[in-house]
Amino acid sequence: MALNPQRTIDELKELRALTGNDDGAQRVAFTDTWVKAREWLRSKLEGLPVEYEWDEAGNTWITLRGESDTSMLMGGHIDSVPNGGWLDGCLNVVAGLEVLRRIAAEGKPPITVRLVDWADEEGARFGRSLFGSSAASGTMNPDDLRNLVDRDGVKLTDAIARFDLDLDQVKQANRQLANAAAYLELHIEQGPVLEKLGLPLGVVLGTFGVERHAIRFVGQSAHAGSTPMDQRRDALGAAAKLALEIREIGKRNGGVCTVGSVVTKPGIVTAVVGQCDITLDQRHMDAAALARMLQEAKDASERFAAEENVSVEWRRIWQIHPILFNPELIELCDEAIHETAGVVHRLPSGPLHDAAEVARAGIPTIMMFVQSLRGLSHAKEEDTKEDHIAMSVEALDRLASKTMRWIQANK
Amino acid sequence: MALNPQRTIDELKELRALTGNDDGAQRVAFTDTWVKAREWLRSKLEGLPVEYEWDEAGNTWITLRGESDTSMLMGGHIDSVPNGGWLDGCLNVVAGLEVLRRIAAEGKPPITVRLVDWADEEGARFGRSLFGSSAASGTMNPDDLRNLVDRDGVKLTDAIARFDLDLDQVKQANRQLANAAAYLELHIEQGPVLEKLGLPLGVVLGTFGVERHAIRFVGQSAHAGSTPMDQRRDALGAAAKLALEIREIGKRNGGVCTVGSVVTKPGIVTAVVGQCDITLDQRHMDAAALARMLQEAKDASERFAAEENVSVEWRRIWQIHPILFNPELIELCDEAIHETAGVVHRLPSGPLHDAAEVARAGIPTIMMFVQSLRGLSHAKEEDTKEDHIAMSVEALDRLASKTMRWIQANK
Repeated sequence: MALNPQRTIDELKELRALTGNDDGAQRVAFTDTWVKAREWLRSKLEGLPVEYEWDEAGNTWITLRGESDTSMLMGGHIDSVPNGGWLDGCLNVVAGLEVLRRIAAEGKPPITVRLVDWADEEGARFGRSLFGSSAASGTMNPDDLRNLVDRDGVKLTDAIARFDLDLDQVKQANRQLANAAAYLELHIEQGPVLEKLGLPLGVVLGTFGVERHAIRFVGQSAHAGSTPMDQRRDALGAAAKLALEIREIGKRNGGVCTVGSVVTKPGIVTAVVGQCDITLDQRHMDAAALARMLQEAKDASERFAAEENVSVEWRRIWQIHPILFNPELIELCDEAIHETAGVVHRLPSGPLHDAAEVARAGIPTIMMFVQSLRGLSHAKEEDTKEDHIAMSVEALDRLASKTMRWIQANK
Repeated sequence: MALNPQRTIDELKELRALTGNDDGAQRVAFTDTWVKAREWLRSKLEGLPVEYEWDEAGNTWITLRGESDTSMLMGGHIDSVPNGGWLDGCLNVVAGLEVLRRIAAEGKPPITVRLVDWADEEGARFGRSLFGSSAASGTMNPDDLRNLVDRDGVKLTDAIARFDLDLDQVKQANRQLANAAAYLELHIEQGPVLEKLGLPLGVVLGTFGVERHAIRFVGQSAHAGSTPMDQRRDALGAAAKLALEIREIGKRNGGVCTVGSVVTKPGIVTAVVGQCDITLDQRHMDAAALARMLQEAKDASERFAAEENVSVEWRRIWQIHPILFNPELIELCDEAIHETAGVVHRLPSGPLHDAAEVARAGIPTIMMFVQSLRGLSHAKEEDTKEDHIAMSVEALDRLASKTMRWIQANK
């Protein structure tokens, strides 16, 4: 059976029809729709000589046993954000399935090939992304998750208990990586870079390091009518200055900086803002530059707080160091794209991916990006040209063949 | 019976103990605690030769009949915001009661003296302030209020029906103003001006004109990691620029401008802000300057929207023209304060007050401010020195005597 990229496109549409609505994809992890998506995927395995397994972290593994236990992993996530796009996450699950079919059709492979559907990559419900992959990589600290609740007050521990998962057992999923010799992940870019360059596919060099902080400015709420301009301690004044300054910091250092949330208190039309909470997300491929961006933002926040006679406090929400993918797999991915599309581009990944967790576990890892239209994702408008999707399946297949040979040569 | 300002202080404390808790005053209009406050006030009338009446808008009127129906009104509001201060609104009700006692003790007055407790000055529950006074003045359009609901989904029309009030009848309260020849209102400043000058009391020249608008910037939400800085359409960028610029507009024009609320969408740490809604409140005593401030803010918003490649839309929430108090009553108030405190200051009122509605109805109106500590109000920390409260009762009493003579002289 030859590789059939059109089947991937058809199956992605089938999944969309089954698990989406007018507002987009609804495959939020640990919900009924997510279960439906996974059952749909399982139904596609009929007739394939594979094993199917849920692990302790809720990841599902589809294993095509080879002559050796040494394995090549392909991974994605079938979960989505609420009102999400039709490709984010599931593209690689469905494309990986097609590659698996092609390999299986050629008889028992020399090494084992496994497709993993990571659990809760998005973290949309409990605010904690990369659930399954961080459990497997070992970077998760279960205590950080123990008290997480969703908007309805449901605890994460209860939501996963429904699937017989226990937070104190999830890290046992690490055993899945024991024989892994390489990890491949295809994903939509979710950014505008490839589209702007007019290119279908790109090699991902690694994932940005991230500094994520909550910043609180506290001044004094005061009546908007009775408080002269020169007697205000306006928390929003300092926050607005910082929201503008972090953009300059990003540009100056060649990274990205974003204030994504501003919350004002009391937050009414007739009161000077007494407290302003903002979030800051900073990303860079270079650890030193990332640290510099953070320091510059901290210095600026203190300068602005002093100017406005307010206080400022920082709380780190999360951080991760830049993660560089495997140099040899970068070359193989470059070749695979070149053979498929005739042209290639190398770029960092701004978003994190399960691949970053696998790389942190010491597994040689590589990602491939396919162009996103208008850079949109996490929205129903997310889209990729069908011929680009087809090319991405072909390139992934070529990369899989090259990687299997590379693994055998390295043994 | 001589004027006893200490009794006013004692009664204010009694009211606080009865209708407040650790979070502050809880006399929200049309609630049980508000009813309790009003019953408390009524209990204080025992033995006084006065009539007590609820009108069609829920205002209560305490009338000391004089030789003539021509009347001098004193007014305040016993309702508070949730978690409010112990003086905002009720100071004048309780001080006015003391003045009424003093006048009543001297026998039947030459003119009628009335104390009004306006209903729902704060508008804390339904977002519509000056309920009772705007009904009486005639500026209320009942249709604007018909569909208002509180946070629990209770309709304003149902909340007032409990008190036998009907939105279609409330404007009949206008009859109460028929014989009114003057209106006096004592209030805490709710701002820092008198404290900064070291003065206990001030004459209020009028209330600021207000322009209140909702401004929406729409750009494009995008992934914080994958969207290069130069490819963003950051709605927060434009909003932050405007939040800073309106402060300069306020200073330049001698008014006050406030962005009190910022709401970001999607409002998550990992996304560039696609939509940013802010509120703008602008106030000035001069109508032309107010119009200039508004135009400057609009021009700036369009400039910033163009710079950030986002759209901007304005929606007026509310406006009111500057309202100047009566020039002769300003002089009488100045004298009364001078005789009480030896020193006086004239200032505009930033906040609106029921007095503004009475003035709009064509009744000669004046307000007196007493110093607020730290400019705080609408918070449990709201406070005024007790000797300043005592002075304010004395000054109000002097102003009442002067005004009664002025009314008689004008007849």
